[in-house]
Amino acid sequence: MTATPRFTDPDPDLGALYGDLADNDLQPLWKLTGLLTPEPVVRTRPYRWRADMLRRMAERSGQLVGIDRGGDRRVLACANPGLGGAPYATSSMWAAVQYLGAGESAPAHRHTPAALRFVLEGEGVWTLVDGDPLRMSTGDLILTPSMTFHEHHNPGGEPMMWMDVLDLPMVAGLDAVFFEEGPTEEPTLRTGEMSGSERVWGGGPGLLPARGKSRHTRPHSPLLAYRWADTDRALAASLADSGGADAELRFADPTSGGDVMPTMRCEMRRLRAGGRSGFRQQTGSRVATVLSGTGTASIGEESFSLGPGDIFAVPSWARYGLEADEELDVFSVTDAPVLEALGLYREQDC
Amino acid sequence: MTATPRFTDPDPDLGALYGDLADNDLQPLWKLTGLLTPEPVVRTRPYRWRADMLRRMAERSGQLVGIDRGGDRRVLACANPGLGGAPYATSSMWAAVQYLGAGESAPAHRHTPAALRFVLEGEGVWTLVDGDPLRMSTGDLILTPSMTFHEHHNPGGEPMMWMDVLDLPMVAGLDAVFFEEGPTEEPTLRTGEMSGSERVWGGGPGLLPARGKSRHTRPHSPLLAYRWADTDRALAASLADSGGADAELRFADPTSGGDVMPTMRCEMRRLRAGGRSGFRQQTGSRVATVLSGTGTASIGEESFSLGPGDIFAVPSWARYGLEADEELDVFSVTDAPVLEALGLYREQDC
Amino acid sequence: MTATPRFTDPDPDLGALYGDLADNDLQPLWKLTGLLTPEPVVRTRPYRWRADMLRRMAERSGQLVGIDRGGDRRVLACANPGLGGAPYATSSMWAAVQYLGAGESAPAHRHTPAALRFVLEGEGVWTLVDGDPLRMSTGDLILTPSMTFHEHHNPGGEPMMWMDVLDLPMVAGLDAVFFEEGPTEEPTLRTGEMSGSERVWGGGPGLLPARGKSRHTRPHSPLLAYRWADTDRALAASLADSGGADAELRFADPTSGGDVMPTMRCEMRRLRAGGRSGFRQQTGSRVATVLSGTGTASIGEESFSLGPGDIFAVPSWARYGLEADEELDVFSVTDAPVLEALGLYREQDC
Amino acid sequence: MTATPRFTDPDPDLGALYGDLADNDLQPLWKLTGLLTPEPVVRTRPYRWRADMLRRMAERSGQLVGIDRGGDRRVLACANPGLGGAPYATSSMWAAVQYLGAGESAPAHRHTPAALRFVLEGEGVWTLVDGDPLRMSTGDLILTPSMTFHEHHNPGGEPMMWMDVLDLPMVAGLDAVFFEEGPTEEPTLRTGEMSGSERVWGGGPGLLPARGKSRHTRPHSPLLAYRWADTDRALAASLADSGGADAELRFADPTSGGDVMPTMRCEMRRLRAGGRSGFRQQTGSRVATVLSGTGTASIGEESFSLGPGDIFAVPSWARYGLEADEELDVFSVTDAPVLEALGLYREQDC
Repeated sequence: MTATPRFTDPDPDLGALYGDLADNDLQPLWKLTGLLTPEPVVRTRPYRWRADMLRRMAERSGQLVGIDRGGDRRVLACANPGLGGAPYATSSMWAAVQYLGAGESAPAHRHTPAALRFVLEGEGVWTLVDGDPLRMSTGDLILTPSMTFHEHHNPGGEPMMWMDVLDLPMVAGLDAVFFEEGPTEEPTLRTGEMSGSERVWGGGPGLLPARGKSRHTRPHSPLLAYRWADTDRALAASLADSGGADAELRFADPTSGGDVMPTMRCEMRRLRAGGRSGFRQQTGSRVATVLSGTGTASIGEESFSLGPGDIFAVPSWARYGLEADEELDVFSVTDAPVLEALGLYREQDC
Repeated sequence: MTATPRFTDPDPDLGALYGDLADNDLQPLWKLTGLLTPEPVVRTRPYRWRADMLRRMAERSGQLVGIDRGGDRRVLACANPGLGGAPYATSSMWAAVQYLGAGESAPAHRHTPAALRFVLEGEGVWTLVDGDPLRMSTGDLILTPSMTFHEHHNPGGEPMMWMDVLDLPMVAGLDAVFFEEGPTEEPTLRTGEMSGSERVWGGGPGLLPARGKSRHTRPHSPLLAYRWADTDRALAASLADSGGADAELRFADPTSGGDVMPTMRCEMRRLRAGGRSGFRQQTGSRVATVLSGTGTASIGEESFSLGPGDIFAVPSWARYGLEADEELDVFSVTDAPVLEALGLYREQDC
Repeated sequence: MTATPRFTDPDPDLGALYGDLADNDLQPLWKLTGLLTPEPVVRTRPYRWRADMLRRMAERSGQLVGIDRGGDRRVLACANPGLGGAPYATSSMWAAVQYLGAGESAPAHRHTPAALRFVLEGEGVWTLVDGDPLRMSTGDLILTPSMTFHEHHNPGGEPMMWMDVLDLPMVAGLDAVFFEEGPTEEPTLRTGEMSGSERVWGGGPGLLPARGKSRHTRPHSPLLAYRWADTDRALAASLADSGGADAELRFADPTSGGDVMPTMRCEMRRLRAGGRSGFRQQTGSRVATVLSGTGTASIGEESFSLGPGDIFAVPSWARYGLEADEELDVFSVTDAPVLEALGLYREQDC
Repeated sequence: MTATPRFTDPDPDLGALYGDLADNDLQPLWKLTGLLTPEPVVRTRPYRWRADMLRRMAERSGQLVGIDRGGDRRVLACANPGLGGAPYATSSMWAAVQYLGAGESAPAHRHTPAALRFVLEGEGVWTLVDGDPLRMSTGDLILTPSMTFHEHHNPGGEPMMWMDVLDLPMVAGLDAVFFEEGPTEEPTLRTGEMSGSERVWGGGPGLLPARGKSRHTRPHSPLLAYRWADTDRALAASLADSGGADAELRFADPTSGGDVMPTMRCEMRRLRAGGRSGFRQQTGSRVATVLSGTGTASIGEESFSLGPGDIFAVPSWARYGLEADEELDVFSVTDAPVLEALGLYREQDC
């Protein structure tokens, strides 16, 4: 335990005061620096994890490490090198790849940190959320909101890998982490043509059940799967409507139009081949991944070439822009709902 | 102008008082009856307008009356016989059939009363809302919200008919009717593969544009067309999910989950062949029409056989239930959002 | 019962069509006029009921009519001469004077129409709302929201009179009137130093109970009495802050900042002696009364001199302004919350 | 900069994998412990800073350190000994005492972290918020919300001390700190009988300005001062109403009923002499101070005697209760609005 720091001063009275302050667990504001800076001073660094490296590491882990070790999940966390060894992609979000071999399953648990899964490639795994089986395929966004039981199983013949994003750093920072194992270690190997969540809430744009369930009574979207076929078609329509270089969708709670979860905003952006987005900066951080296409991400003073499966991190208030070589589809998660709820959200072109 | 009523009394002092009250435009509460009744005493009667009659009347009107007469709309209003000659289907809603011949057009205007169109049969007409062309086909719900310019044109070779529902009685009762002709009497004969409204807001369940437009800034849904293909699929999924005798959807503003317009709730109900809904009563009235199937509506003490294209009215607080012979799809409009907003909504099984 | 009107036409085919339409309870839009007008065409007339007349009539009623006759309330309703004999001050609001003699009481009942009481002169009566005793004194605003049991008793030695305003025309127009007698005809003669409502919710600006009750869970304000001492002081502070000719307060639900009841907005306006308000028009109607001072109300094309206790009605969209001779305090009720909720509110200087 | 940690393993393949993972800025979940704990594992410790010590330290600082050093504020921050030397009272809140000598002034600045001031003793200092002068006296709560310019000056003859609470750890954790100096280093020595904020928004319970300003358009309360006279009277009324051992008020935004600022909830609790509160635990932390009275705080496994001016910290999910010897008034700040907004708030009796 680091003690309260003791400031020193050549003046003996001041020196004595500083010693007494430290002994009484007080700190003099006038000796503290860097607390109130003109703009955010962030530790998160612009960073990119390469797809081929991620896949290679995940496969080696699959060969060497059983699913039943530690946490019942075979997960490799992106550790932003600016964060002093913490296993976080940015100061507010955990990002990772999760790898599940053919025939493997990861049993149910739940926790206050909310998670989402974005499938970069492949299919065949099922995620059960409170028992409701959600098929996972390329381009799908699957939600496992705060305190919902979730488990994964892979009845197929091929291993599969996807990206996990969690709000863990925020929940931990607020001292609000709770965790529970599921009722049994036995996996529930349920599958199904369409999840109950999608049957009830995924009818179509603006179509909700008429009775009871129709109201927004939970803090997250009741629709737990956003399918690539819908997202792809909506991006195409939106791009056609604007006629511009890019289009961007927000994944929303159909019962409120709000974000899918109170801590994370999910977006999908498409740039036409050769297109450039403008540059923007916004408070709060971003974790993103490339679903398809190639291009370049400019983040702060750095730029990174991008290809399918790459994951990258954008720090708070960093200048950020994309450029597409081939048509580029990028999925992003930000903590914007938190900054908005707290009156701290800012954005500007730059 | 009826004057303030003069109550009389055999007692000369009271008689004189009643005369003086009337002369001073006052009325004694103790002589007024029927103001505060244990339950709503309504004038709207349970009623049904038959599809074949509506079609026959519309066709004869099409032959005899040009589109350019009175109001630039060839509209036959359902006049509930309980409402003393008023051209309203219920005390709070206008319902009508509108008929547009091949090659005809109805020029743009706008007004504070909000309207919606539900297509019972046919296709080929386009409704432009603030210039955005919306194709109209069987089973589609088309919105022309308060103060949006709207016009219709029929470039096809066949006449077409649909149901209009407006909140006119409510808006008139609040002394808030405003009306404006469009900028020109010339029709805008625009068509298009997909409306801008649908390209931007109709991407799919929970898919919204990411920037700016994404927020709920108007009092009505920005999605102006709800397509039958979506509604049909969602009804089927919902029915599969519940396993029950019927399923009911609410048409919602995708940016808020609220009703499509602040004065009217739109719902679509499907009963399996042979199915019965329960009986309910709710405050506020209902206008409904049958898209397909046959069955019976029980309304208050009466019952009406139903077939495709029939329109019927359910008074406030009347006991209401449906029974299907063949699978029955019923589209309804109620004023429930108004009653909810004012704290006056009640419903109960009965 | 007036039947559906039969339009006629010299052309025999059209005449036959119009007959058949009427027989089938349909009305041709092109024969209907006055439905969609450029601006509201209202029946409510600008009108004023004089204080001395109101008091004289109330006193005579007090002498001649027992409190137990009809409705258990001795109430004289202001009947706007434009409304064809209906007992309403405007198309949307009931306004009346209620008179309770020394020692009299009016037993408990409740109903969906919401009511408020504004005390123009005197004191000594208690209104119990769901059993909570609220003292009534000059300048106080007392709420008896929808479906709260309310009763009045006058333990003092003097008769007392106050203004009632109800949303009855709106609730009746929506076919949503419900009424219940209280559990007993026996009056509850309870009094108390301060009502429970005020102890819990009336602590001060921005002071709410910390637990449970603190949330906005009902559609109306839990604070049921707004005391003149507070209103007077707030008007003075607001007038001092603006430095202008007038100040206007809105009575708000302290748990939400919204209006005190979902159907009626209450406001209190003070004009300095010699001051003039601007002219405005707004959709929806207004009932107002003068607490103190003298001046003139301009309403539409008419103007009315004003003195303490006068009640006046302002129709929807009528040009309205006030002018003070002596410092003038005017209490107003409008249906603005309804027009706002339905997206129909407009206002403009004129 | 600590590098990504390198896990080791006796198995050479696993050891090699762990090395490669570290080289690629990845961390294996199964080697990470303590991320997802059954209940919050917190570093904040139950702690109390004694009033006499705080006053002595503040006075010595006043003698030795000019107001113009470092940050233009003479502030001593409570450093919770569990937080490894960070100058924070809890993981989410900064708490401090600020001392301003007779005739001193602290010039204007603004920042995204929101602050509030609670006066434990004395009077005579003015805080200007965006130029509006707010007098500070014992028991008053003064808000300086996010990005409002604020400055302090002490025109009186006595030094004065108060408690500051800021949401700095949360805003810093979200990388959203922005800071600006005021337009001038010259202090604005304005005073005034009543602040503009109070004239407009502090009229009384449920009294708001009628026009324009009346709507909730900022994320914080427009009422910036909550006066002890009001708080005291409201506590007394609330205690009388409940008849219980204690009463607790929440300071609210009068335009919304919500918390005064989006990141901090302020409450004032009164325990009768000899009274005991129950024990509760809630997610999120609390900083509290005693305005008057004596008693004991039980926090987690520890207990602290309390007297006027003591400041204490309650960690997230710690069991917390109060016991009064003399009548005890305790002012608290929690981060509950943040936990509620993010769906992470839990509380329970324990």
